[in-house]
Amino acid sequence: MSKRVGARTVALPSRPGILSWASIVGRKEYEGPYGERFDQILPDELNGESSFESAERKMLETAVTLCARKAGRETADVQMLLAGDLLNQIVSAGYAARNLQIPFYGLYGACSTMTESLSLGAMLADGGYADRLIAATCSHFCTAERQYRAPLELGNQRTPTAQWTVTGSGAVMVVSGPAAQRTRVRVTHTTCGRVIDLGIADANNMGAAMAPAACDTICAHLADTGRSFDDFDLVATGDLGRLGRDLLIELLTQHGIAVKEQKLFDCGCEIFSPRQDVHAGGSGCGCAASMLCGYLLPELYAGHIRRILFMATGALLSPTTTMQGESIPGVAHAVVLEHEEGER
Amino acid sequence: MSKRVGARTVALPSRPGILSWASIVGRKEYEGPYGERFDQILPDELNGESSFESAERKMLETAVTLCARKAGRETADVQMLLAGDLLNQIVSAGYAARNLQIPFYGLYGACSTMTESLSLGAMLADGGYADRLIAATCSHFCTAERQYRAPLELGNQRTPTAQWTVTGSGAVMVVSGPAAQRTRVRVTHTTCGRVIDLGIADANNMGAAMAPAACDTICAHLADTGRSFDDFDLVATGDLGRLGRDLLIELLTQHGIAVKEQKLFDCGCEIFSPRQDVHAGGSGCGCAASMLCGYLLPELYAGHIRRILFMATGALLSPTTTMQGESIPGVAHAVVLEHEEGER
Repeated sequence: MSKRVGARTVALPSRPGILSWASIVGRKEYEGPYGERFDQILPDELNGESSFESAERKMLETAVTLCARKAGRETADVQMLLAGDLLNQIVSAGYAARNLQIPFYGLYGACSTMTESLSLGAMLADGGYADRLIAATCSHFCTAERQYRAPLELGNQRTPTAQWTVTGSGAVMVVSGPAAQRTRVRVTHTTCGRVIDLGIADANNMGAAMAPAACDTICAHLADTGRSFDDFDLVATGDLGRLGRDLLIELLTQHGIAVKEQKLFDCGCEIFSPRQDVHAGGSGCGCAASMLCGYLLPELYAGHIRRILFMATGALLSPTTTMQGESIPGVAHAVVLEHEEGER
Repeated sequence: MSKRVGARTVALPSRPGILSWASIVGRKEYEGPYGERFDQILPDELNGESSFESAERKMLETAVTLCARKAGRETADVQMLLAGDLLNQIVSAGYAARNLQIPFYGLYGACSTMTESLSLGAMLADGGYADRLIAATCSHFCTAERQYRAPLELGNQRTPTAQWTVTGSGAVMVVSGPAAQRTRVRVTHTTCGRVIDLGIADANNMGAAMAPAACDTICAHLADTGRSFDDFDLVATGDLGRLGRDLLIELLTQHGIAVKEQKLFDCGCEIFSPRQDVHAGGSGCGCAASMLCGYLLPELYAGHIRRILFMATGALLSPTTTMQGESIPGVAHAVVLEHEEGER
């Protein structure tokens, strides 16, 4: 029985539940406007480890473990881990999966990973392929900067369009069947992103690289479901930043979408305050993930917001192909999250 | 309704069909024992492009397009592309998805990608989340060597345990509903791998890094389903190579599995002949993918083999973390493929 709605959207008849969630961030993120919302703060950038890569892996591992615990579970009870990160060979997710010993499907969607993992996880839970699974991701400023741009030790000046990679992680437990009644946050739809490329080639302008993909996925979702901005309390994007958010509004308007700007909540614009000197805003897989788990899910659970279109946005930046003259395409996957009164 | 069988296996009640498949390989693979089986041969290592990375991307794009065409479809009819490759940021898959404009979930499972994409694809098709999707992967000797080991120009001598990364790609179309009756190859089960690490740290001994994960997944699958080697015509592994295959037999025997060695078909041992000077055998995502599409699926379709446990195996090798003193874990995902008489 096809669950497809329109060209790219899937409706989930069982409305899988998000039973628990956990967020961890670094000190700079803690000092931002949402600092008190996150579950844990890293003691420092090394997180008790000897390398930034290992610090990032441990952060993800802690988020997954905490997420399981908040659902009253051990990690051994989790049937599947869907996760990825920004690092080459997704080493943070891979080594975390090794240490946690949860069966693992590794994903790469750059900064779109939180909704890639959540989309796939929600479909797998809805179909009965997993009773409980965790979708997760993470990023770390110090690992991302040296892999994608330049070693921190160089002290390069940042351009005005640059975004600050969030040091943070988020993990959500998706459950199906009767367990979904135990929560008040349900996943009702997924929309799969296409890779869209309008020719941006500047590694310090990720917002512009991602905005066209964000526009494409929002347009597809609204066309597939017949909905508009009026049907959502928020349309939350991952990490477009100030420049990318402005571009998205422009692109959506060009596509004939009646944008309600006050509903367009970009995690990258929100996570830091302008006084924190992050230029265009936050970015990284951990940006959408920590804001989802620190702010959006608790608000949905409480019923302060009732329905959101949540869409992490990724720039498929490769230093190798950029040097070969390629541009940087983007991708964005969307899920609809709803408040629903449950048993508790 | 849970479709889970035992701890890690999923049974697919609708038995999604594999409607079409396509394989492309390089000249060296063409000169191996299965050369005549593949659909297309690259003209040379650059495949008409200006970089090896671009050559690899174009190969994957061609495999996906050819796979759609063999099913009587345009790529625009394909609802989802599940793909990944060995390169940082999975650039081959990402740029192929951009050019093909198929909605895309990017995966990273190193050389396990063919069964990761096929597992996720089969579950999504079974559940009605996609009517037709393509699962695909690729690898290229020239891109993998320079990213993971050393530039080819160095002319490094290869160790006896080294494997030769296959230049090749494979793509399969997974369909659900009535369309599945149009083929004779069905996917009946998936088993999700765990990340297993027995401490191998040598980038030239991938077989040893992957064998423990292969053993873990086979043991889980047999325990979950109550089956043994007797229930399969072949237990096909991705790219363990000669050393890894021997280790797998030893590990399975230690775990009390009655191994039928003649049924243990390793794509890495098969794709090249010993005269081709590849040392321990073939490797790379393209190894399992091209052998699946060039040899195993046609044999299943013809009924020459009736049921196989197919499991691509990945070594989660990262040059960065290896230099930081980390070891190389492995992961292996399995699917059961069966011949079934269809309408045609």
